[in-house]
Amino acid sequence: MRQVYLDNVPLEEAQSIFLEKVHLPRWTEKIKTEDALGRVLAKSVYARRSMPAFHASAMDGIAVNSQKTIGADEQRPVTLEIEKDFLQVDTGDPIPEGFDAVIMIEDIQWLNDSEIEILAPATPWQHIRPVGEDVVAGEIIIPAHHKITPPDLGVLLAGGVLELEVFIPPKVSIIPTGSELIRPEETVSPGKIVDFNSTVLKAYVTQWGAEAKASPIIKDDVDLIKQGIIEALDICDILVVNAGSSAGREDFTAQIIRELGKVFVHGVATKPGKPVILGMINNKPVVGIPGYPVSAYLALEWFVKPLIYKYYGIPQPERQKVDVTLGRRVVSTMGKEEFVRMTVGFVNGKYVANPLNRGAGVTMSLVKAHGLLRIPANSLGYEQGEQVEIELFRPKAELKNTIVMVGSHDLTLDLLAAEIRKFSDDLFLSSSHVGSMGGLLAIQKEEAHAAGIHLLDPDTGEYNIPYVEKYIKKPDLVLINLVYREQGFILPKGNPDNVQNLEDIAQKDLLLINRQRGAGTRILFDHLLKEKGINPSLIKGYTREEFSHLGVAAAVQSGSADVGIGIKSASIAYNLDFIPIGEERYDLLMAKSFLNSYHGQMFLNIINSPGFKSQVEELGGYSTRDTGQIIWES
Amino acid sequence: MRQVYLDNVPLEEAQSIFLEKVHLPRWTEKIKTEDALGRVLAKSVYARRSMPAFHASAMDGIAVNSQKTIGADEQRPVTLEIEKDFLQVDTGDPIPEGFDAVIMIEDIQWLNDSEIEILAPATPWQHIRPVGEDVVAGEIIIPAHHKITPPDLGVLLAGGVLELEVFIPPKVSIIPTGSELIRPEETVSPGKIVDFNSTVLKAYVTQWGAEAKASPIIKDDVDLIKQGIIEALDICDILVVNAGSSAGREDFTAQIIRELGKVFVHGVATKPGKPVILGMINNKPVVGIPGYPVSAYLALEWFVKPLIYKYYGIPQPERQKVDVTLGRRVVSTMGKEEFVRMTVGFVNGKYVANPLNRGAGVTMSLVKAHGLLRIPANSLGYEQGEQVEIELFRPKAELKNTIVMVGSHDLTLDLLAAEIRKFSDDLFLSSSHVGSMGGLLAIQKEEAHAAGIHLLDPDTGEYNIPYVEKYIKKPDLVLINLVYREQGFILPKGNPDNVQNLEDIAQKDLLLINRQRGAGTRILFDHLLKEKGINPSLIKGYTREEFSHLGVAAAVQSGSADVGIGIKSASIAYNLDFIPIGEERYDLLMAKSFLNSYHGQMFLNIINSPGFKSQVEELGGYSTRDTGQIIWES
Repeated sequence: MRQVYLDNVPLEEAQSIFLEKVHLPRWTEKIKTEDALGRVLAKSVYARRSMPAFHASAMDGIAVNSQKTIGADEQRPVTLEIEKDFLQVDTGDPIPEGFDAVIMIEDIQWLNDSEIEILAPATPWQHIRPVGEDVVAGEIIIPAHHKITPPDLGVLLAGGVLELEVFIPPKVSIIPTGSELIRPEETVSPGKIVDFNSTVLKAYVTQWGAEAKASPIIKDDVDLIKQGIIEALDICDILVVNAGSSAGREDFTAQIIRELGKVFVHGVATKPGKPVILGMINNKPVVGIPGYPVSAYLALEWFVKPLIYKYYGIPQPERQKVDVTLGRRVVSTMGKEEFVRMTVGFVNGKYVANPLNRGAGVTMSLVKAHGLLRIPANSLGYEQGEQVEIELFRPKAELKNTIVMVGSHDLTLDLLAAEIRKFSDDLFLSSSHVGSMGGLLAIQKEEAHAAGIHLLDPDTGEYNIPYVEKYIKKPDLVLINLVYREQGFILPKGNPDNVQNLEDIAQKDLLLINRQRGAGTRILFDHLLKEKGINPSLIKGYTREEFSHLGVAAAVQSGSADVGIGIKSASIAYNLDFIPIGEERYDLLMAKSFLNSYHGQMFLNIINSPGFKSQVEELGGYSTRDTGQIIWES
Repeated sequence: MRQVYLDNVPLEEAQSIFLEKVHLPRWTEKIKTEDALGRVLAKSVYARRSMPAFHASAMDGIAVNSQKTIGADEQRPVTLEIEKDFLQVDTGDPIPEGFDAVIMIEDIQWLNDSEIEILAPATPWQHIRPVGEDVVAGEIIIPAHHKITPPDLGVLLAGGVLELEVFIPPKVSIIPTGSELIRPEETVSPGKIVDFNSTVLKAYVTQWGAEAKASPIIKDDVDLIKQGIIEALDICDILVVNAGSSAGREDFTAQIIRELGKVFVHGVATKPGKPVILGMINNKPVVGIPGYPVSAYLALEWFVKPLIYKYYGIPQPERQKVDVTLGRRVVSTMGKEEFVRMTVGFVNGKYVANPLNRGAGVTMSLVKAHGLLRIPANSLGYEQGEQVEIELFRPKAELKNTIVMVGSHDLTLDLLAAEIRKFSDDLFLSSSHVGSMGGLLAIQKEEAHAAGIHLLDPDTGEYNIPYVEKYIKKPDLVLINLVYREQGFILPKGNPDNVQNLEDIAQKDLLLINRQRGAGTRILFDHLLKEKGINPSLIKGYTREEFSHLGVAAAVQSGSADVGIGIKSASIAYNLDFIPIGEERYDLLMAKSFLNSYHGQMFLNIINSPGFKSQVEELGGYSTRDTGQIIWES
C-alpha cells in the first residue's frame, strides 16, 4: 500500500487517492414503497402486475363493437341498441367481452331510453387503454441506484411493488475536538469559541443523504481523542475529526490516525482548506478537517460528499455555472488552488461578481455568497473586468431577481432587505459595503443597481450631488433620499475619557477605530481633522479600519478602541455613548432606467412604505422626512 | 366577488384568479436553531453576540506589540523576551492586553527557552481576527422569508441565536374519491384501479415543503364526499380533491364545492389537465384535480405548488431550461396549451428531444421524462428538426452522461441500463423503443448513440448489414452484437388452440396482437406471411399494434389476443407457451467515434462483462455467444 505523506498534494490527486482506497460496504433494508421518497434503490425493480390490468375505457361514453359502426355518417346515421350493440362505460371501466371501441358521450345522440344514433364509425380500439399501457408486468420499471421521485412511487404501486430494497444511509460521525470549544448555549468568554461547526457539518452531511451524528466536544487530550475515535468508529461508516487548524494539533490528529490506521494524505494544496488529513482506520475512512468554518465546509465537500454519493452509486448534483465579469481584481497565490466566495449580481444584462471576505474564519462569507470562484494553482488570479466562470450556490433566477446595492454601509439597508423579502416572494436585495466612493464607481461601471452614498463636499457643504457630477460620466441618473442620519463619536458607556470634541481625541491620546478609505464617514472625519488643523498621524489608530458602523461600535464596546466615528444607531445598538457631529444625508444613486423598471418601482414602493419608515425611526438617530423623495436628477 | 365559470380558462389567467383570491394565514412556531435546516424564517434574525467575541489570534505563533518589532530585518534581527515582549498563542486564543499583532510560528527563531529573534517587523493587527470579523452583534444576519441552509446555522449559533421563529409547514389534505379505487395492497380485479395518486401527490407536496395527509378512499357518493371535505377542511390549510376525470364525476365535485363555498374556475385550457376546479370553502382553497396521473400532477404543480411557496414567501425553484432539436414532429391542438413529456439526449454536441407517450394516464411517461415541452395555445405544434425550449426534470450533467439508445425493444436493454447504474455512479442509459427502422433513422440523423436492430433481409437471409448499407449514408459505422434471441409465437398457457405454425393462425381465425410498423419482429412476420403466401388481411387483428414484446405477451395473457409474435423471454416472463420460428441476431449500430469515446468504451465493457451476460442467459431464449463482438464495420 502506497502511503502518500505530502504537505501540498493537489486537490484532485488527493481526491482520487482517497476515493481509490475507500470502499464502503453497502447496507440495505426493506421499506414500504409509500415511505420511499428520496431513498436510493439497491436493486432494480420489476413490475409485478400490468397497469391498466385490463382493457379500460379512456373516456366516458359507450363501448361498441367497431364492426357494427362501419359506414355511419351524417347522412346515414347508425342506430345502436343498448345491451345488444352498446354498453355505457365511464373512464376506467373495463371493456366488456365482445366490444372493441369506445365512443365519447359527446358523440352520441339518444333516440330513446334504449337506442342511440351515431354519425361516425368507431375505429377498432379507439379510446381504449390497453392492458399494460402504463406499466407492463415483467419490465424493469426503476433501475438500481436510482433516487426515488414522486412519479416513481406511482409506477411502483401501479406495478404491484409494495416493498423496496433501498440503501441504508451511511452513518457519518463528527468529532469536535478543542479545549477552546463550548456548546452554543454556554456563555462566551475570552478564549472560548462556540462549536457551531458540528451543527453545520451535520447539516451538510444530512443534505447529502447520510445520517449524521456529532459526538460531544472532546478536549485536546491524546487519550481522550483516541478513545473518542475508537468509540465513534464502532457505530459509523465515515468519521470526520474536526480538529483545530493549528499545526500542532493537526499533527496530533494525524498522529492518532496513523497510530490506529493509515494516513494517505496530510495537507492539500488549496486555500483555504489546506490542513486536511485523509486516512483510514479498520477499513473505515477518517477525514481530519480544519477548524476554520470555511475550510471545514470545503474539506467536507471535497472528501466526504463524494464518499456519500459513491456509496449510493448516484452522481453528485452539479451546481449551475455562470460566466461573470469581475468587478474587482482577485489575486491568488501560485501553487495553491484557491476558492473565493463571491457575490454575483445581474445588472444591465450581464453578471458581475465581486469577492467576499476571504478569511477562512468568516462564515458570513458562505451565508452571503452567491457562488464560488475556483482559481487554479498555476494562476496568480484575475484582473478587474476579466470574464471568469463561477459555480453558483443559488439559482440564476434568484440572481436575476436581486437588486444589487454597492456602497456605504447603513443599518437601514438590512431593514430594507428584510422588508423586500416580506413584500415579495421573489425579489431580493444584496448589499456590499465598500464605502460611498466604491458605490459611485459601481454605478459608473454598471455593476450595481443602486449605491448608498453620503459624501460631504467641504467646499459647498452639499452632500452627494457635487461628487456625482464630478465623478460619474453617465446621463440619466437620479438621487433618491433614503434617510438623514446623525454622525458622531461612538464612546464607551459613560464616556470615561470625557470626550467632548475632536481635539480631545488627539490631546488625550485616545485609541481610535477608523473607517476604511473611501467611506463617507472617513471623508467626513478627514474633513473635520483638516478644519481643525489636526495632522492625522497624531491620532493613534488612525490606520485601523473597520468596514461598518457596527464594526466600529463593536470595537469600542470590546475595549479595543477608546473612540470611533459612526452613526448614532450603531451606538444605540451597542448601548454606547454618542456625541453628535452633525446630520448627514444618505441618498441612493441609481440610473433612471432602473428606477423606472419593474424592480425599481417595487424598490421605491418599499422605501416609501410606512412599515419601512417606522422601523427606521425606531432604530433612533434617523430622520425619514425626505425618504423616497427625488433629491436630484440628471 | 367575481365568480368565473368557464370551460376553457387559459392557464395563466386561472393561476392569477386563484392566487389573488387565496390568502393563507401564516402560522409560526419557535424551534431550536440546530433543528432548523430547510425551515423558512418567519422573522429577521439579529445577531445577539459578535463572533469572534474577542480579538483572537488567526495563527499559531506569538502575540507581540508591533511597536517593538519596528526595524527588524535579516541584517538586524530584533530579540524579544517571553512574557515581557511576547506570549505564545495558538489559533483562536485571545490577544492579551498590550499586544496588537501576531507573528507566525514559522517566522520566529528560538534563541533559548525564553528568547526569540525575528527578521521582519509585524504590522499592527496582523494575523488577528478582530471582534465581529464574522458576525457583528446587532446586525440582521438572516432576513425573514429565507430558507435555512447549513452555513446559516453556523452564523446563527455564532451570533448567539439558539431559537428561531419559523413558519409551520402548511397542511395539505388529499381526498381520493372514486368507487373504482382500491388500496395498493388490495388485489386488482377488472374495473378496480389502484389508488397510487394519493401517494404521488403527497410526495410532491412534501417535496415542496408542506405537510401532506391523504384521507382514506371515499366512494362516489355525494354525502360521503361532502362529509369527507368538511372533515378534511377542519385540519388543513389547502384541500385537494382527486376526483376522476369523467365529466359526470367532476361536475359532482364542483357541485359540492359550490354548495359549501365558491368555485372560481372550472376547466382550464390545457392538455392534459383540463378538468380542474379552483374554489374556496371557509376561506380555504380547494382544488379539484383530474384522476389521470399526469393531469393530476400537472394540476397540482400549477395550482397547489404556488400556494405553498406563496405561504412561505419564497420563490419557486426554477427548472433548468435547454434548447433542443426535435427528433420527431409534435402536433398540438389549437386553443389548448399542451404539455408534452420528452426524452432529451445529448448526441454529437447537441440536445435532441423526442416526445413520450402523451396519454394522460401514462405515469411511466413522467418517470422516463427528462423534461417538459410547453406548446402555447395558439400553436399547432412543431416540425421535426425545429429548435424548441424544454424545461428539464433532470440536471443537464445527467443528460450529458446518458447513452441514448433508440431502436428495437429487447428485454436485455433494461438489464443493460441497470448494469450501467451499478457499474458507474454517473453514467446512464436511456432507451426509446421505436422499432429497428426507427433506430436506423436515429443513427442517420445523429439523434442516438446506438440503435438496437434485428432486420432480416429476405433476399440474403442476412441480418442488419444489408439494411445499414442500404439506408445509412454515413461512414465509420460499426455493428456490435448484443445477443441472439429466439422469435416465435407467444400463446396462452397450454396452447388451447393447438397452434403449430403460421397457417394455423389464419385457418383457425385466431385473434392476433401484432407489433408496430417498422419493428424488426413485424418485418419478420410479414416475411413469413409472404413466404407462405398468406394475405395479411386474412389475419384477424393484424392491424392491432403493440410497441414491445412484453406488451404482446401481456395482451395474450389478458385474453385480448389468441396469439402474438415475439421473443421467447417475453413468453417466459408471463409464463406463456412459445413456439419458435427461428433465431435472430440483435445488434447495436453505432458510430465508431462513439464506440471509441470514453462512454462508448465503458458501454462496451459492460456489455462484455460476465455479470451482464449471465443475467441475459438467465432470462432464457438468448444466446450470448457473440455478445460484444464486432459483426461489421464500414
